[in-house]
Formats: sequence, C-alpha cells, structure tokens
Amino acid sequence: MLQGYSIISGESRRGSGGTFTGIDPATGAHLAPEYHCASLDDLNLAADLAEEAFAMYGKLSGHEKACFLRRIATGIESIAAELVERAHRETALPEARLKGELARTVSQLRLFAAVVEEGSWVNARIDPAEPERKPLPRADIRSVLRPLGPVAVFGSSNFPLAFSVAGGDTASAFAAGNPVIMKAHPAHPGTSELVGRVISESVRESGFPAGTFALLFGSGTEIGTALVAHPVIKAVGFTGSLSAGTALMRVAASRPEPIPCFMEMSSANPLIVLPEALRTRGPQIAQGLFNSFTLGVGQFCTKPGLVYLPRNADAEAFITALKSHVEQSSASPMLTDTICRNHHTGIAGRRAHERVGLLAEGAARETGDGAYATPALFEVSGAGLLAEPELATEIFGPSTLIIRYTDKPELLRLAQALEGQLTATLHGSNGDITAHGDLIAILERKAGRLIVNGFPTGVEVCHAMVHGGPYPATGESRMTSVGTQAIYRFVRPVCFQDFPQAVLPDELKDENPLRIWRLINGQFTRDAVRAEAPVTTATA
Amino acid sequence: MLQGYSIISGESRRGSGGTFTGIDPATGAHLAPEYHCASLDDLNLAADLAEEAFAMYGKLSGHEKACFLRRIATGIESIAAELVERAHRETALPEARLKGELARTVSQLRLFAAVVEEGSWVNARIDPAEPERKPLPRADIRSVLRPLGPVAVFGSSNFPLAFSVAGGDTASAFAAGNPVIMKAHPAHPGTSELVGRVISESVRESGFPAGTFALLFGSGTEIGTALVAHPVIKAVGFTGSLSAGTALMRVAASRPEPIPCFMEMSSANPLIVLPEALRTRGPQIAQGLFNSFTLGVGQFCTKPGLVYLPRNADAEAFITALKSHVEQSSASPMLTDTICRNHHTGIAGRRAHERVGLLAEGAARETGDGAYATPALFEVSGAGLLAEPELATEIFGPSTLIIRYTDKPELLRLAQALEGQLTATLHGSNGDITAHGDLIAILERKAGRLIVNGFPTGVEVCHAMVHGGPYPATGESRMTSVGTQAIYRFVRPVCFQDFPQAVLPDELKDENPLRIWRLINGQFTRDAVRAEAPVTTATA
Repeated sequence: MLQGYSIISGESRRGSGGTFTGIDPATGAHLAPEYHCASLDDLNLAADLAEEAFAMYGKLSGHEKACFLRRIATGIESIAAELVERAHRETALPEARLKGELARTVSQLRLFAAVVEEGSWVNARIDPAEPERKPLPRADIRSVLRPLGPVAVFGSSNFPLAFSVAGGDTASAFAAGNPVIMKAHPAHPGTSELVGRVISESVRESGFPAGTFALLFGSGTEIGTALVAHPVIKAVGFTGSLSAGTALMRVAASRPEPIPCFMEMSSANPLIVLPEALRTRGPQIAQGLFNSFTLGVGQFCTKPGLVYLPRNADAEAFITALKSHVEQSSASPMLTDTICRNHHTGIAGRRAHERVGLLAEGAARETGDGAYATPALFEVSGAGLLAEPELATEIFGPSTLIIRYTDKPELLRLAQALEGQLTATLHGSNGDITAHGDLIAILERKAGRLIVNGFPTGVEVCHAMVHGGPYPATGESRMTSVGTQAIYRFVRPVCFQDFPQAVLPDELKDENPLRIWRLINGQFTRDAVRAEAPVTTATA
Repeated sequence: MLQGYSIISGESRRGSGGTFTGIDPATGAHLAPEYHCASLDDLNLAADLAEEAFAMYGKLSGHEKACFLRRIATGIESIAAELVERAHRETALPEARLKGELARTVSQLRLFAAVVEEGSWVNARIDPAEPERKPLPRADIRSVLRPLGPVAVFGSSNFPLAFSVAGGDTASAFAAGNPVIMKAHPAHPGTSELVGRVISESVRESGFPAGTFALLFGSGTEIGTALVAHPVIKAVGFTGSLSAGTALMRVAASRPEPIPCFMEMSSANPLIVLPEALRTRGPQIAQGLFNSFTLGVGQFCTKPGLVYLPRNADAEAFITALKSHVEQSSASPMLTDTICRNHHTGIAGRRAHERVGLLAEGAARETGDGAYATPALFEVSGAGLLAEPELATEIFGPSTLIIRYTDKPELLRLAQALEGQLTATLHGSNGDITAHGDLIAILERKAGRLIVNGFPTGVEVCHAMVHGGPYPATGESRMTSVGTQAIYRFVRPVCFQDFPQAVLPDELKDENPLRIWRLINGQFTRDAVRAEAPVTTATA
C-alpha cells in the first residue's frame, strides 16, 4: 500500500511541507494517497545521513556495488505489474511502453553493474618511480577515479522509470560510489514511492548505511532548490525543462562551493532530408517521422521537432504523405496538465505566427476532461526561420515544424543557426551524405549524437551512446546522461604519490589484483607493474 | 626585438587600450618596451579568426597536431637564452629555475604530441549494430572525443613558461584540437611576446589558419572578462588567484551559453607529520619542508602552507630545527609588487592575530626598493585553527603555519575542517600510515594529490598526475591542469549512429586505420570491428 511519505534513513517519513496528489492525466482524477512534501528538516536529515553513508558506500568494491544494483533490478522486476499499472495511471503512457521502459530500467542497472564489476572504468594510471632519472628522480605517481560524494537526482516527468527514481542518473551515481538523494517528480509520486521502497530495501538487504538513499517528495521548487544548495551535495543529475534546469544551475554556481550540474534540458532535434533520400524513400521517411514525433505523445527529449526539406516536388509529395498521417491521428493525454498547457501555448504561438503555416492537425477531442494534445504539423520557410530563430525552440508534445530550404547554402546557414541539440538526423543516400561533409561538420558542433537514416527517439543504453550536447540541450556538453559513460559525471581523479602498496587502493596496487586495464607509463595493459617497467614516454 | 604588441592573425597588432610595462621586481625598474593593451575590437577580430580556424584546426590528425606541438617546442628551445634572460628580469626567478621550467615546458609540449600522435586518448567506443536483436534491432553506435572550439587561456604569474603562453593549458587545448586565444599575464609581457611569436610562427610554418592562435595583452580585467564572455569561446583555462578565478567563473556561468571553466586557484597544501616519522626523521623533514615552502619565494601553487605536528618533545626539536633554517634565511624578490603587497598584508594579519605566534623570520631587507619578502614561520594550536578556520587560507609567499594537534581525534577534526586542496602530504613510517587510514580517507575528499614522505612542490608532468582538487583549489575537481589527462578538459564526446564507413572519423572506422585502443562492445581492443563481433554485455 502506498503511504505518501518520503523515505529517509530507510524509513517512511511524513513530511510537514504541504500535500499534493498524483493525477490521472487521462481523466483529471486525483489519485490516492495524498503525498506529503518533505520539509527542510527532512532534507537536512537526509543530507547528514548521506554524508555519513558515503564513508562506507564510497569505499565499496565494484562487486559489492554490482550486487546492490542487481538487487534493485530484481526488486523492480518483482513488482513490475503493480509498478506499470500505477505508472500508467499517473502518466497515461501506454502499458506496453511502460513495460518496455521497465525492461530498459533494469537492464540499465545491470549494465552499470557489469561495468563496475569488471572494474576498468576507473581509469587507473600508474607512472612508476624512476629513482635514477636525471636531473631529478621521478616519484611514483598513480591515479584513479573516486566518487564525488552525495549526489542529488531530479526525476523526469517523461520517463517515470528509466529517468526517475532508479533511472540512469541514480544508477550511474550509485555505480560510481555515491549516495543519492532523489527528488521525486511530482507527476508520478506513487511510481516513485514504489521504486524508492525497492531501493531502500536493497540498501537494507545489502547491509549498507541507511543514508545511502533517500527519496524526497515536493510539489514546488523549494525543496529542490535547497537540495542543490545543500553543502553535502557534490553534484546534480537532472532531466527536465530549460527554465528549471537553468535556475538550478545558477543555484549550484552561486554556492560557497560551486558544484557540477548535469542537466538534460531542451532539444528540438533537427532532422534533415537530403534530395536523393527524399526522392527514393520519401513515403517511408514520412511514416517514420510521424511515428517518431508523435511517439509518447511527442514527449521524448529526442522528438524530431525541426524537419528540413528542399523546395522541390519530392518534398511536396513527402508533405502530402505526412499531412495524411497527421490528419488521421487523434488526441492523446499528455503527462501532466502543466505540460499540456505549455504545449497548447506553444502551438497557439505557432498558429498565430505570421511566418508559420499550419499544414495539418489530428482530430480534436470533444470533451474538456484530461490533458489531451492533438498532433499538428507546421511549416516555415528557411528565410522565415533565419529571421525568427526562436521558432526553433523545442515545443514538448506531438507537433513538428517543417522548414523548406531553397538551396544548400541556405541549408548550411540554417544548420549554423541551430542552438545546441541532443541529436541531429540526416536522411540521405550515400551520395547525399558524401556530398554534405560540410553540413556534418556543422552538425557535429551542434549535437551530441548524429544519426543517419534513422530517427532520434529511442536512445540505446550502451557504451558508445552520447545523450548530451551543447547548451541548451544540456548544461555540460562534455558528458552524457545515457550509456555507461554517464558514470564519469560523478567521479574525480585522485592521485597517490609514493604511497606504500598496503594503503593504495586495489586498483593501483602493483600486482593488479582486480585484473583491470590500466595505463602504465602511458601504455594500456592488464599486467602487473614490474620493478623494471620500461619508460615509454617522455616526462618533464 | 620586442615590440609591445598583441599578436592577431599572425601579425603584431598595436592595441588601442592603454599601455603598461614589465617591471623588474628586484629593483622596481620599468622594462622596455611599452605594452599596448588589446581593445575589444582586437578581441573580436581574434575571436572571429579563431572560430574560422577551428573548422580546419579541429579536424587535423593527431600526427599533424603533434608536428605543430613539436615545432613550438623546438622554437622555444631556439630562443632559450633570450627567453630565460627576459623571464629572469621580469620575474626575478633564478635563471637555473627558469632553465628547468623551460625544459619542462618543451617536454610538456612533446608529451602531448606523443599522446595525440599515438591517438588512443580519444576514447573511441563502438557498439556495432545488432540487426537481429529482439525485441528491437540495435543501431550501430560509435563515439569519439571532439574538440570544443576556441579556448581562452590565462597565463599565470608564477610559471612564466610552463603555465603561460605555451604552457600546459595551451598545450592541452592545442592537442585536443582547439584554437587558443591567450591572455598574457601582465607581469611578464616580454616573455609572453617571445613565446607568442614562436607559436605564431609555428602556426604559419605548419600551414594552419592564422586564427589558430592569438596573444592579447591587457593590464586590467576588462579584456579577460570580455574574452570569457565572448560567444566564440567554448572553454577557459586559468591559473591565478581565487578572487580573479571566481569572478571569471561567474562571467562564464551567466553567459547566454554557459561554458566550462578550468580554474586553478587557491591551495594551502596541508602537510601532516605523524609521530614515528617525527621521531626518526624530524631534522630531514624540517630541512625538506623549509626548502619546499621557500622554493621560488613560496610562490608555488603547491607550497606547503599548513604543517600539522603533535604536541610532544619530538615536535619541539623539529620546530627548533625549522626555526634555525628560517632565521638563517633572507629576503628575496617576489614576482610582482602586488603579490608582494598581498603577502605582507597576509603576514601582518598573522602577526596581529591573537591566536597565532610568530616563531621565526629571516633577515629583513634594509633598502625599500623592489618587491622583497622574508621567510616567516607561525604557529597556532589545533583548537585555535578550528575556532578560526580562515587562518587556513593560502598566503602566497615564503611563510608557513604550524598547527599543534593534541591527539588523533583533533587531527581528524582538523583534516575534516580543511577546504579543497591541490595536495595533502603525510610524513609517516609504514606503521604511522597504516594506523591512519581514517585520515587518508578524509584527505582523499579534500585534495587531488596525496603524497607520502615527500613534498608537494614539484608537479611531475606525466599520465597519472592530478593537479586539481575540490573548490577553492580549482573550479572543477573532476579535472587536472597538469599531466596528459589535462587534455580531457577541452573535448566533448560525439556519437555517430548508423553512419556509412566513408564519412566516419578515422578513429571509428571498422578497420581501425589508426591502430588505436578502442572499446568495442565494452571490451578494450586494438582489433578491427569484425562483422560478427560478439556481444559481451547486456544493453537495453
């Protein structure tokens, strides 16, 4: 049974900061129970316990952390039916989608478990002593990545499982060795409580300090702001809006001790159709594009919201096909009333804009209940977008904007005018792609992930994924929030000079007891350090 | 002959923003020529050219960048005598020290050349397509590190060669593939001009765009602030004071597009002497400590400014020895008049502080000319420091503060009270060290580099070095400004999904033409991608 309480020190704790409920976006109905917002006292307690827990949790072996992550995964699977049912009621996302998201969530936890159990991710580097070096001997220098300390994670609205309480930020922060204080997204509190209990139980069963994890509920900005400002917190993981993310970044930057913030925020995800692809695969691309921009009612960070087409007859046929898909579509409930209102405001702005034409929209909904949005297709000229670049701003929801470009120079100018993006997609024949190296060079600076002949929605959780990009897509283009590289957000290198073997971390001991890959004198190897290790690169 | 002009577009450019000169700190004499400060127009021109240059420079191969870095190194060596002579006049640092610093500077350039020529640093990751995967096929996903774009570098006062115009920040930014706009430190303009010309000439000889490098002179904060705020700039490397660094961090954080700042700022570098080491090696440690805190007139970022000793008779003997060294010392010129005045202000504050005792000082200087400072030794009790933590703030110059701790619990409290540091040093027997795992665990969170039985001054340029640490030591504890890992400050990962082989970067092509180490399906290898590459880790 859901209780409506935060989880601190492994126990339910009824906050004193006001109440709210989950809402079924399909009907507007309030969902029991009432959720009690955490107070600043609750936060302070969670923070003190997290700091205390870090002394032990931060020193765990990869194997111990892996067991913990797998325990969470198993725990989530054991309540899958209940979880999917509650998440469906709170988000109106289809159950099939939520089942897929649950599978992704647990496999993400297990992937991080595999990474930390294997252990080479710590970037161990060893430059052995050179006592005979002239003019000065070289000390023994070894470095390894260490966890930062307690991490604040903000759950997203649009991925109630994979980017919320046990999502990618939490998994990577835990994998790196950090306690997590989770600010649940108020749009799916029941889902958050269920997952929070699984994590809390996993902490207990693992014998870790109770402060390793806390879950805080809050409906406004107060508790989140205080969380980012709290001196115990050493980094932030966040998925949400540009305004909320930017506000928290400013809080983090003006702390007495500024901390790194990893905010995934706003992306319009340009998709460019090049001439040969348009001619030979127009209808298929139109179908795929429609599926992609309406997937999850257009509530993906990677929804293609800008579609660039040449001014030619093939594009007319493409648009006709796309219009037909849109016209046959109908309204679906969005995640929250606020998101839906923002969507309607964005759409109203486009409708009223003199440079923008409405090409098609789906069937509107007759009744006024619930937070429904209808797919819509808009158009603007390349010159129009260059004149009004704010038209390229993300509108979260099931619409997209077609931009008709006159020629390649205009296309390059349009690409150059883009803000930072999570993704940029090209549809092109091999000939198209080869002829557009200049375009690719521009897009590389604009986006974290470039896609050829696919669609940006659907972010693979793997070693090479980059779900990141220049501002405003994220607050830190040098990192990714999806895939195994996400772990590198929550660590810092620590260097040990002339340390006795016995007190070195296992990762840095001569004999390499963990059998991990290390960089010894600049060379990758899984070998032990030999007394006579050859020097292979110059140092000063 | 020195001209006193900035270098933009490969040419000397006389700035219109006022003038200043270098000053010989030993005599206070002004050194010809006059230096003309760059104007905002000069900056804008340099920035536009850097942006333009990036299109070509950012795509160079590792080999091409390596040749460029080596050309700079050779160029610096070819003017070594002139450079050392001018640097000596501008900084009063001894010629032997400057010769050593020059050797370090060129070997640092060559080390980065070796790293980028070898090529594995780019963290290439490949997760090949799995068209048969159920329920959904996996796309082909590959990622590699790419340069950020033009980098602003601020020269330091205390390393006129190794952390100035062709220093570690410049070398790592160039190695990563970024144009550099250098703000010269006004304390050694002639040294900066000489090195700037070498770089500019190397750009020209390499056939790179002239905007690859610019050198700007300025005596106030205007041009530096405008540089960090300029939209073309994508990252900042800085070594200097906490106040200047923090001010620039705020500028960077409040840009329309915030950018990462790598600021190396303030560190008091605690050095803790444990009981057995004190008993058996007290006099040697006292000698080494004196050498370290007075090295370069105490103007090292890693100067040990806090020395923790137990309250026992061994410590009395240690202090007696240390006092004797200090009393036999005499005044030396500091880098600049401003630095010297700040030093005197800091020392005056300690002298006047009721909790602090002056134990010893060197011979004062009789004449008033020049910017001279005299070594000084202070003492405070552990309780005194805990009560007045601001006493632990860095004072740049040849002084240090001894803290007498009563027992181990007090020592742990003192360690816990430390701010972020570049280094923390322990002197201890194996028994001491083993008995202080709790202390080491605290220090790991406080400092980027932990040293056993050595001294923190002298930062090895190697693969494992970490010259970084929590705020206020740096603005970003997750990075280092010395050693080959410094290159990772100036890059971001870019991911390519389902790209045709022909347009993939060489680092990501199936056949691995560069023969670099890559992570394929989570496994390190230098092999090519095989069509039937086995899947070794789960993905969602």
